[in-house]
Amino acid sequence: MTNRQRINYINKTLEKVELYYRLMGKVSFDMQCIAPKKGLQRASDDINKISSIPFKLMHSKKFMSTVDELYLNHEGLNEYEVKLISNLYESKEKSKNITPKMQEEYQKATSDSYLKWLECKEKGDYEGFKPYLGKVIELTKQRVLLRDKQEKTIYDTILNDFEKGNSIEVLDDYFSKLKEGIVPLVKKILNSKKVIREDFLSRKVEIYKQERFSKWLLEHEGLDMDALVLMTTEHPFTTGFGLGDTRVTTHYYEDMFISNLYSIMHEGGHALFDQNEPEIFHKYHIEGHMSMAMHECASRFFENMVGRSKAFIDLIYPKFLELFNEEFKDVTKQELYEGVNIAAPSLIRTEADELTYSLHILIRYELEKGFINGEFGVEDLDKRWNEKYKEYLGVDVPNNKEGILQDVHWTDTYGYFPSYSLGSAYAAQIYKTMEKDLNIEECIRNDEIYKIRDWLKEHAWSIASITDPNEWILKVTGEKFNPDYYINYLKEKFTEIYDLED
Amino acid sequence: MTNRQRINYINKTLEKVELYYRLMGKVSFDMQCIAPKKGLQRASDDINKISSIPFKLMHSKKFMSTVDELYLNHEGLNEYEVKLISNLYESKEKSKNITPKMQEEYQKATSDSYLKWLECKEKGDYEGFKPYLGKVIELTKQRVLLRDKQEKTIYDTILNDFEKGNSIEVLDDYFSKLKEGIVPLVKKILNSKKVIREDFLSRKVEIYKQERFSKWLLEHEGLDMDALVLMTTEHPFTTGFGLGDTRVTTHYYEDMFISNLYSIMHEGGHALFDQNEPEIFHKYHIEGHMSMAMHECASRFFENMVGRSKAFIDLIYPKFLELFNEEFKDVTKQELYEGVNIAAPSLIRTEADELTYSLHILIRYELEKGFINGEFGVEDLDKRWNEKYKEYLGVDVPNNKEGILQDVHWTDTYGYFPSYSLGSAYAAQIYKTMEKDLNIEECIRNDEIYKIRDWLKEHAWSIASITDPNEWILKVTGEKFNPDYYINYLKEKFTEIYDLED
Repeated sequence: MTNRQRINYINKTLEKVELYYRLMGKVSFDMQCIAPKKGLQRASDDINKISSIPFKLMHSKKFMSTVDELYLNHEGLNEYEVKLISNLYESKEKSKNITPKMQEEYQKATSDSYLKWLECKEKGDYEGFKPYLGKVIELTKQRVLLRDKQEKTIYDTILNDFEKGNSIEVLDDYFSKLKEGIVPLVKKILNSKKVIREDFLSRKVEIYKQERFSKWLLEHEGLDMDALVLMTTEHPFTTGFGLGDTRVTTHYYEDMFISNLYSIMHEGGHALFDQNEPEIFHKYHIEGHMSMAMHECASRFFENMVGRSKAFIDLIYPKFLELFNEEFKDVTKQELYEGVNIAAPSLIRTEADELTYSLHILIRYELEKGFINGEFGVEDLDKRWNEKYKEYLGVDVPNNKEGILQDVHWTDTYGYFPSYSLGSAYAAQIYKTMEKDLNIEECIRNDEIYKIRDWLKEHAWSIASITDPNEWILKVTGEKFNPDYYINYLKEKFTEIYDLED
Repeated sequence: MTNRQRINYINKTLEKVELYYRLMGKVSFDMQCIAPKKGLQRASDDINKISSIPFKLMHSKKFMSTVDELYLNHEGLNEYEVKLISNLYESKEKSKNITPKMQEEYQKATSDSYLKWLECKEKGDYEGFKPYLGKVIELTKQRVLLRDKQEKTIYDTILNDFEKGNSIEVLDDYFSKLKEGIVPLVKKILNSKKVIREDFLSRKVEIYKQERFSKWLLEHEGLDMDALVLMTTEHPFTTGFGLGDTRVTTHYYEDMFISNLYSIMHEGGHALFDQNEPEIFHKYHIEGHMSMAMHECASRFFENMVGRSKAFIDLIYPKFLELFNEEFKDVTKQELYEGVNIAAPSLIRTEADELTYSLHILIRYELEKGFINGEFGVEDLDKRWNEKYKEYLGVDVPNNKEGILQDVHWTDTYGYFPSYSLGSAYAAQIYKTMEKDLNIEECIRNDEIYKIRDWLKEHAWSIASITDPNEWILKVTGEKFNPDYYINYLKEKFTEIYDLED
């Protein structure tokens, strides 16, 4: 076989693999957004049944040895093909010792765990969810231990999967800097005399009105609406099926309209990234290969740096009053701006303000580190959760629904949470660089968010899937990663809002 | 191999086949209700790619010969298994000479035709759709001609597929009786002095309000809402993925609220049937094997005999005023009843009244008969359509969007339309039988439609999938099929509404 024949064989196999991923993805999307309760189990079984097909395709002897051959000899491959082979080699190294049977067991455990979570979350029943969580954690650890190459600890290996170069050491350092910057700020705010009006934040806004606002927001955020879907779900997420089909989901609460507002801005940010990766990456099957923090950088950029800015409130205020006149005609622009930026310790991560958000992440990080590395198990994990919420945020968790069961992630994923915080920190650093080329606030105020999108497309998203995180932030901003940008941004913003002394 | 081993092999294969049908069905549902414009082509390609898998599974030599063996020797099979084998044998006889390549070509032609229809309907562009229509018709005819066993003409064979025992002869007779009964009635109505108030029928009703009403209607129609989905689409339909997951779709028009009202009642009728077939039919893979007219009997029963009855207006009127008080507070119960029963020649089949509905069907029947049996081609089919609308209904078709392109059916299906009319006729005959056991109007008025559902479940739906149409109507009603019930029902109803002389 020539290298050209090898790469053709790889491509043909990947097309089949991607076809099955799309099928599974659509059934899974359907489960999360559409299927009725009584249809969930069968849908889950169907996904489990076909999940072995792409796994087997990518773990056949022929496929794995062809990847090895091309990895050792790139002759005749273009740069995208070289990158593809390197991706495949890496992922093969991670999973080559996993048997189809083990994969099947894992697949079943994660989908059972998801269905159980749905049920237990509603009832706040951690005891019911516990054995399912325990099982997935156990299998996850087993899978890591099967690899030829390990990092220092299992959790280090997992962190490195999400963010190459990341480790407990790096994150401990990062979070301690963050704590140092944020905790005193939160204290100052709690002691400040500034009163921010919040009565209107819990006013009832009918869902159909929020739906209209959501569509308007997505359009003005710069999304191609002919290639976008908006649906509702329990836990908002973004997914997609190629360049022409990106899907954003949200959750509406009648008495908390800003929940949807910022879900839309956040997921819309993910969707912007997905809609704007280079087409050639799709052609060569290397799209979507950025780190999760790079992706969260996009979503947190649009959620916070854009969505919680004064300029953005200027932009949306007229539409806001048009759609919600009945509800909010007595609310001024400044009150709206301050209202969406109230910094206060709270229970729910996805509803948290920009400032205390990273403390929610810190709690999850510390718990993951502990239960993945075997310092403690799932027994009493809810109590540990509640203790940390008391310690870091000073809040009492009234039930497990608003406590340990609030997030979908742990049904099958560990090590992801730090990406949210890192993404915010990347976003703050990139913002400073973007400012050299663009008057960002003016773009937002003038309804030209597409200029921000286009800047990110050109400078950040065009290289994300082919660059490691550390190298990426260096290339985009001209500097190494530096969390001070994030900390300073938070200090400045909240000092101003709460009239604090510097 | 023993017969037990044979049937086990058949079942195992069918489980795989059904898995792929569900996958294709979900992608297709997604295309019709969710996917963005730019995602349609890839979704369609994906369906085409996997469609060959179930086809090949059911056309392997082993599968076909096992079916033959069990068909010739039933020993050890239970009655459901015997029925399953008979179904499989029949369907195999119809498709055994179709090669995978031909199947692929057909699959691609029908999905291309669907996508083209979507595009052309919007523009009213019959010329654009014409070659796609022509191609699918050609392939459909080829597929029929490949069978070992043929009916008198190609269209007869197709009719017999949808409704065993049906033929041009039977339908010509049926429709001529119908014309004889209906056409004079329509004339009388056009000459009657009765004025029915219709101003309110085109009042604007916001879609979110119609959505709320739809959910209420489905609940009160007797559906299990934990096993049901309601979505919106271009052309309403019902589909499903097993007993726990039935899906109803509708289309909302702001200025025509009764369109959605009766789409919901109609599709809800289909869904009731699907939710209430015996579980054991599902276990043995023989569910859903009723004729299409039997299925349309359910939907037309709930749309018309229930939904357009006085008792039903009594039932919904309070809810109607609660939800749409602003829009309809000046409309009386009697006005609403008469408004939903206005009989007037019109353009759109799905919006047609109960009386003229069958004339819409007649037009499609005559055209299908012609182009399937080669009396004319697709050239000028739009003109033929318009001529017939002028002749039978006296209306001028202003454009192809409201003319030949209005229905989705011809993108891949011919011979289905008569089922709607036959279904209505079955429904009228069954109504008379049901009346012996139930005070139907009282059930409706008292919000006990579930009693009607349960009667149908016990007497009609429990045997539909295992009985041929003629035998079925005889078993359910104790009489042979007799369209006079339908004609008399229409005469009585409209004579009363329009104060006609008998």
